[in-house]
Amino acid sequence: MTTNKKLSSARLTQPTDKFVEEFTASVEFDQRMFRQDIRGSIAHATMLTEVGVLTPEERDQIIDGLQNIETEIENGEFEWSIAQEDVHMNIEARLIALIGEVGKKLHTGRSRNDQVATDVRLYLRDMIQPIRSELSRLQEALLNVAEREADTILPGFTHLQTAQPVTFGHHMLAWYEMLVRDAERLDDCEKRVNSMPLGAAALAGTTFPIDREMTANLLGFDRICQNSLDAVSDRDFAIEFNSFASILMMHLSRFSEELIIWSSAQFDYVDLGDAFCTGSSIMPQKKNPDVPELIRGKTSRVYGNMFNLLTLMKNQPLAYNKDNQEDKEPLFDTIDTLIGSLRVYADMMGAITVKASNMRQSALRGYATATDLADYLVRKGTPFRDAHEVVGLSVAYGLKNNKDLSEMSLEELKQFSDQIEDDVFDVLTLEGSVAARNHLGGTAPEQVRAAVQRARFSR
Amino acid sequence: MTTNKKLSSARLTQPTDKFVEEFTASVEFDQRMFRQDIRGSIAHATMLTEVGVLTPEERDQIIDGLQNIETEIENGEFEWSIAQEDVHMNIEARLIALIGEVGKKLHTGRSRNDQVATDVRLYLRDMIQPIRSELSRLQEALLNVAEREADTILPGFTHLQTAQPVTFGHHMLAWYEMLVRDAERLDDCEKRVNSMPLGAAALAGTTFPIDREMTANLLGFDRICQNSLDAVSDRDFAIEFNSFASILMMHLSRFSEELIIWSSAQFDYVDLGDAFCTGSSIMPQKKNPDVPELIRGKTSRVYGNMFNLLTLMKNQPLAYNKDNQEDKEPLFDTIDTLIGSLRVYADMMGAITVKASNMRQSALRGYATATDLADYLVRKGTPFRDAHEVVGLSVAYGLKNNKDLSEMSLEELKQFSDQIEDDVFDVLTLEGSVAARNHLGGTAPEQVRAAVQRARFSR
Amino acid sequence: MTTNKKLSSARLTQPTDKFVEEFTASVEFDQRMFRQDIRGSIAHATMLTEVGVLTPEERDQIIDGLQNIETEIENGEFEWSIAQEDVHMNIEARLIALIGEVGKKLHTGRSRNDQVATDVRLYLRDMIQPIRSELSRLQEALLNVAEREADTILPGFTHLQTAQPVTFGHHMLAWYEMLVRDAERLDDCEKRVNSMPLGAAALAGTTFPIDREMTANLLGFDRICQNSLDAVSDRDFAIEFNSFASILMMHLSRFSEELIIWSSAQFDYVDLGDAFCTGSSIMPQKKNPDVPELIRGKTSRVYGNMFNLLTLMKNQPLAYNKDNQEDKEPLFDTIDTLIGSLRVYADMMGAITVKASNMRQSALRGYATATDLADYLVRKGTPFRDAHEVVGLSVAYGLKNNKDLSEMSLEELKQFSDQIEDDVFDVLTLEGSVAARNHLGGTAPEQVRAAVQRARFSR
Amino acid sequence: MTTNKKLSSARLTQPTDKFVEEFTASVEFDQRMFRQDIRGSIAHATMLTEVGVLTPEERDQIIDGLQNIETEIENGEFEWSIAQEDVHMNIEARLIALIGEVGKKLHTGRSRNDQVATDVRLYLRDMIQPIRSELSRLQEALLNVAEREADTILPGFTHLQTAQPVTFGHHMLAWYEMLVRDAERLDDCEKRVNSMPLGAAALAGTTFPIDREMTANLLGFDRICQNSLDAVSDRDFAIEFNSFASILMMHLSRFSEELIIWSSAQFDYVDLGDAFCTGSSIMPQKKNPDVPELIRGKTSRVYGNMFNLLTLMKNQPLAYNKDNQEDKEPLFDTIDTLIGSLRVYADMMGAITVKASNMRQSALRGYATATDLADYLVRKGTPFRDAHEVVGLSVAYGLKNNKDLSEMSLEELKQFSDQIEDDVFDVLTLEGSVAARNHLGGTAPEQVRAAVQRARFSR
Repeated sequence: MTTNKKLSSARLTQPTDKFVEEFTASVEFDQRMFRQDIRGSIAHATMLTEVGVLTPEERDQIIDGLQNIETEIENGEFEWSIAQEDVHMNIEARLIALIGEVGKKLHTGRSRNDQVATDVRLYLRDMIQPIRSELSRLQEALLNVAEREADTILPGFTHLQTAQPVTFGHHMLAWYEMLVRDAERLDDCEKRVNSMPLGAAALAGTTFPIDREMTANLLGFDRICQNSLDAVSDRDFAIEFNSFASILMMHLSRFSEELIIWSSAQFDYVDLGDAFCTGSSIMPQKKNPDVPELIRGKTSRVYGNMFNLLTLMKNQPLAYNKDNQEDKEPLFDTIDTLIGSLRVYADMMGAITVKASNMRQSALRGYATATDLADYLVRKGTPFRDAHEVVGLSVAYGLKNNKDLSEMSLEELKQFSDQIEDDVFDVLTLEGSVAARNHLGGTAPEQVRAAVQRARFSR
Repeated sequence: MTTNKKLSSARLTQPTDKFVEEFTASVEFDQRMFRQDIRGSIAHATMLTEVGVLTPEERDQIIDGLQNIETEIENGEFEWSIAQEDVHMNIEARLIALIGEVGKKLHTGRSRNDQVATDVRLYLRDMIQPIRSELSRLQEALLNVAEREADTILPGFTHLQTAQPVTFGHHMLAWYEMLVRDAERLDDCEKRVNSMPLGAAALAGTTFPIDREMTANLLGFDRICQNSLDAVSDRDFAIEFNSFASILMMHLSRFSEELIIWSSAQFDYVDLGDAFCTGSSIMPQKKNPDVPELIRGKTSRVYGNMFNLLTLMKNQPLAYNKDNQEDKEPLFDTIDTLIGSLRVYADMMGAITVKASNMRQSALRGYATATDLADYLVRKGTPFRDAHEVVGLSVAYGLKNNKDLSEMSLEELKQFSDQIEDDVFDVLTLEGSVAARNHLGGTAPEQVRAAVQRARFSR
Repeated sequence: MTTNKKLSSARLTQPTDKFVEEFTASVEFDQRMFRQDIRGSIAHATMLTEVGVLTPEERDQIIDGLQNIETEIENGEFEWSIAQEDVHMNIEARLIALIGEVGKKLHTGRSRNDQVATDVRLYLRDMIQPIRSELSRLQEALLNVAEREADTILPGFTHLQTAQPVTFGHHMLAWYEMLVRDAERLDDCEKRVNSMPLGAAALAGTTFPIDREMTANLLGFDRICQNSLDAVSDRDFAIEFNSFASILMMHLSRFSEELIIWSSAQFDYVDLGDAFCTGSSIMPQKKNPDVPELIRGKTSRVYGNMFNLLTLMKNQPLAYNKDNQEDKEPLFDTIDTLIGSLRVYADMMGAITVKASNMRQSALRGYATATDLADYLVRKGTPFRDAHEVVGLSVAYGLKNNKDLSEMSLEELKQFSDQIEDDVFDVLTLEGSVAARNHLGGTAPEQVRAAVQRARFSR
Repeated sequence: MTTNKKLSSARLTQPTDKFVEEFTASVEFDQRMFRQDIRGSIAHATMLTEVGVLTPEERDQIIDGLQNIETEIENGEFEWSIAQEDVHMNIEARLIALIGEVGKKLHTGRSRNDQVATDVRLYLRDMIQPIRSELSRLQEALLNVAEREADTILPGFTHLQTAQPVTFGHHMLAWYEMLVRDAERLDDCEKRVNSMPLGAAALAGTTFPIDREMTANLLGFDRICQNSLDAVSDRDFAIEFNSFASILMMHLSRFSEELIIWSSAQFDYVDLGDAFCTGSSIMPQKKNPDVPELIRGKTSRVYGNMFNLLTLMKNQPLAYNKDNQEDKEPLFDTIDTLIGSLRVYADMMGAITVKASNMRQSALRGYATATDLADYLVRKGTPFRDAHEVVGLSVAYGLKNNKDLSEMSLEELKQFSDQIEDDVFDVLTLEGSVAARNHLGGTAPEQVRAAVQRARFSR
């Protein structure tokens, strides 16, 4: 096999160093693209036949051989060889072993440079499907919780300090909105993934009368890379996909941070379900929110892959350089991390239990309706900045006397402004507060239900 | 002023530490958004009037005051105050100073949380215009060079080793293609930038009967953020913009690497123009390609900003946290870097001189047409892998005898395959080689000219 | 001035493009190194005189001129010029203007390449002092709190779930330990910062008989860079410093995360002091932990700078390239961020108030002493894994009956193991639990006090 | 096995979700620490016996069992189980299966939190040895080349433009110097790696009378982590190691960039040896510098790991969180990448061939001795800035007339300064130029030989 390999350059008179062979081989991680490699080769052979480079008989032998190889690999009967370096050479060498001379004709009019670029794009395109479907499943789970908890009130936080009451359904929809943008970004990215480099050959195109549109059709590509030098060296799609993935994981890290805080004994707002938690090797009382913690941690991993790829491509002169072999592992790792994280999140959110009474108790503390009092005063004619000050004084009084605003008497409240009347107590309740924010995007239960309907409709 | 400021919380009884005030203030860098802040406030006041919260007279006073402030700032007469913390509070405090009580009504139904999110989006949207225009100018420059140099031949490289001859026009189009994707990504990103958070107030919406669609129309937003919690905490658009920018800068770093290598005495393929180079404080003979080097370096800076923003948002619980104040400097720095880099690149490429004869000499060395010989043999009936081996032996012979393939006699070539005939010499010339790659995306001059036409047409 | 500048290369016949001049100038950010530049020049001139290249009179004129320039700059009377590009050329041009011909001799035997490398190292070395001193002040503040709160008990967390009781003093010492490592890393880094590149000239050394050891002594350098090519291109020290800074900021981000969580109404463990918090523009009841939030955010910024510098240096061929001009802004930004963050943290920790009773109440919930029960059983002869299981069942019983372990009767406990005796209640108290962890590094108050003493002694 | 596992928390009544089990398991990647885990357990058992917690018989049974397990693993006979989650639980479960009840006592006085922290440190410490040895081998290879090529002259570059002649030996020593700093940083880092967390137990220490100094001695740790909360959550050592690794890889990326450029046909300065290059699947004439390209690419990977780890630790509250499970893969990947890259680099540099005559020809072009002429004039009394200008005019003349400085006649040179005499030609030769830079760190062959001697002596 080593001999065969060195044929890739008649200029090289010494065999490759054994450790170098291992160090530079990619077959251990690129073999997962075998289906895409074979699919690409079949399309290439088909096109070569249409344009007269191969005969129909040659094509059939090649396709037959490739299909046999696919079966061998799927059955675990294929012997991968480090000496054959990568998935492409492994399959081609096996093809020649299986069908003889004709196999040597497959590589006509292409190069490994456009072949690998095509394989990676096909592979990523194939993986976008499960990602999209898990993402959608998570969105569905969030919509379900949002609808179910449209009336459940918890404190809304800014700076992790109680700010204003919000509904849990509204909070779930905030998460949902983030995922809507992620899905959009994935669609946008896919347009650029689904463009075919094949036909660029090594870097300049080929002298054979290839028909790139035909190959693109056979492989389901929407576009064709318009410049051969760019086609073999472009890895934008991998970076853009990693950027999409990084932002998505960032969202999951935010969800996770909240779930972890909410699972603490001090908050105690949610129960994640035993199936998503683990215990401790030493502390028998523990129920740890492992899944959100791990996903929070995995966010860093996807970020690391993103920066790996960005840095990898920096400064690379055209066209292909060996550096590019390093593009696959981070991309594959991101794909795997994403699918797993979304899957487990969708399952977990489907099983979450909300502790509404703890949330409510928590919202009743912390002067959550202070802004409502200020707004009330504005409606009675006080300029906002002055109303803000009046409420500040009321809160200061409440803190000193350990009373929430809703617990003060009308007399107590009137100390701070004589515009306060009996109707003030309507706006100081949690229900009054959330119901009053009844505009597009507001936290009112009515708005939450409408938003769920809109979301369901647009899916 | 400090007193005024502390009014933002009646709960705080001690004044802010002096150094803390400075450390937490953002006015030094966020003041550049003053136009957007004022434009947003005018739209907000207009909407508040339409829904009956302000009177037309109040609105007019506010708008008048704000316009005066804009003029003060533009004339450098505005006194920015650290104690007022940020651009928003500085302008609001000045408004109250100018027009009195009425000014205190402007903040009704909004919060700094939705205000700053709106300002940043407006600012970025405004900056996308010059970016798009400089990007377009650079594309135009590349098309011009591509057209002019459609027949100029240089060695195409893989691994920085001579691979196959390509045309310089084709090479410029590879760069052009990268920028096409960048422009697409910018368009995609802009959709998500141009969505309005205003109306989210602090985090939950407001109890005033606001009309968000009206405000969005007044401000030219295409969309409205659909969830108030998400609206105040979403910084995806800034990250996505930085991702677009990172990929674009990566492209410029690749262009730069090539220009720097091509400017070396050893390659000597291009002349960058004295206006874009500098000399040395100690070596009088130097002409350094400073501009591409600096832009190559600035790529790292944009990457750093990208990583900064991604990390900033990781793990943040909803809704707004002070961490987010750190979003602006990296975003602004990326915008500035991008505009400057594109501008100087467009100018530089407009002035580049190509040393065609050096390129040609270089292409004549290095067995650039070896693949053409292999393809020739395939067309004569040799399977590709065997043809590859024949050519390998010919090259080995050439290396030993210091002859390029085109310099060998027919007899010499025939040693390696008797299928080689007199017509072989057509395929061994540089012109023959590039002309033969005459398919969509190939390097043939004809294809280059067609691609330039297509590109011009679609612009 | 422009003419003067173009003298840096007689090869350049066209003036630099106006925008390029601006784009490539560094004077706006490198002028902050003016003291170091002048100090370096004085030492260089002194050495040149000792080796006979300058006369004592020339040296005196030069030194006098440089000192005048330093005064001009300090008094804000110096006119910085973009056309002079950087701090070095600005000062040299002014020197020539002030003292005439002699000024032109200063640059003998050096180049901007070794000059700038020297200036940056001197500047960073100067800035390490305030960093070290603020770091030390923060450590002192932590030791004070640790000592004061050596007996204060709070729940120790893993996974943000109550794990075992710990003392607040012990927790503060965990923070202290992190800073001990940071201080060590800073010392290690400083060794490599404090090495002198001067004498490397442009890249190869100089033909003048310079005495580098003398210059190093004059400037207080501990080492001399041993290879001229390396000396002008080495930026390891800046990266290593940024790595130190990134780890330190990571520590502060962890402290901050805890302070923010502890400041929430749900935990309510600490009070940060009004001087370190701010209010809200809309919610009068808010007291936001701005300082820790902002520092948590600024961590990303330092990470971004780190990534910027690492990426900047990747792939750079020797020796100096213009890319390196981009090294200064991230370095300066990291220095500024670090000094400010440490300063405000030291102040804030000096003013922190601990809510011991809330912590205690919190620790009493959550079965914090479950491990103590398991250890008790092991001491009575139960293998650890079995003891773990017994306690698990007890906790399950407690959860169902809403009783902490210490609230169960002996009979109740005996259900799960007959090895449990009356002495069990000693180990189930919070005080018993922490006191029992009385070994090096354990949480016992005695250990905390001993650790504070050791720390004080070693400082 | 699953049942056993769920015993880690009696609080959890539902079994872990099957996919969650897989998703959260670490055994696939942490099993590589089995030797360290066993070594740590043996030391722990030994110490427990000395302090009276285990009997000598129990200890012997445990040690015997662990040694059997080690053999099983080494022989590939051990069955790793996902249900047992990690290497620690797999080994402990197997121990209990092998030796029964006594095995359950091993976990007394420790927790997985301090156990895993100890294992990772032991593993990294073990891996530092091969890293140090490969690094040293590479340094040795560089010293050999430096000595051999102490007189070989090539153009020294700044901005990839010919600057001044340097010796190839000097250039190799620049690389060597970088590695000296790397080795220093590794030593500094190792101090902090080699500190023992064991004894911290879950987070607070243990109630058993452990003797941490004894365990530390048994395991060869130099230090003991001084605070239990910090001990279980500290991952600084992994980040610091990755920072060391990133800077080292950055250096290799710089070496690689130069080797790749030098291997181009246009430079043609070195021959890398066929064993370190590969050919092309389509272009038979190619000899690609795969090894340096791949290592240049792998630099990004290590950077990615660095940022992964930094981001992972940001914001983590004390003490242990599940996020930390993500620390191992990036660390292991960095270790593997480093060892492989150093090994192949040491081999490659041992086999490099230098094309001295090409280098010399290259240095003769490009006015490499222009600075020497300027220095000559300074020695004749011209101020440096004026000399710089004179030389600039000479170079401009040379460019117009296509003559290097050394090719001009005395008359031609005298046009620009009448201080130029016949002795000028000595300084315009390449040999004269390099020999004249004869000071510490200069490029003179004499200095190179001295530096090699110093380096050899200090090793």
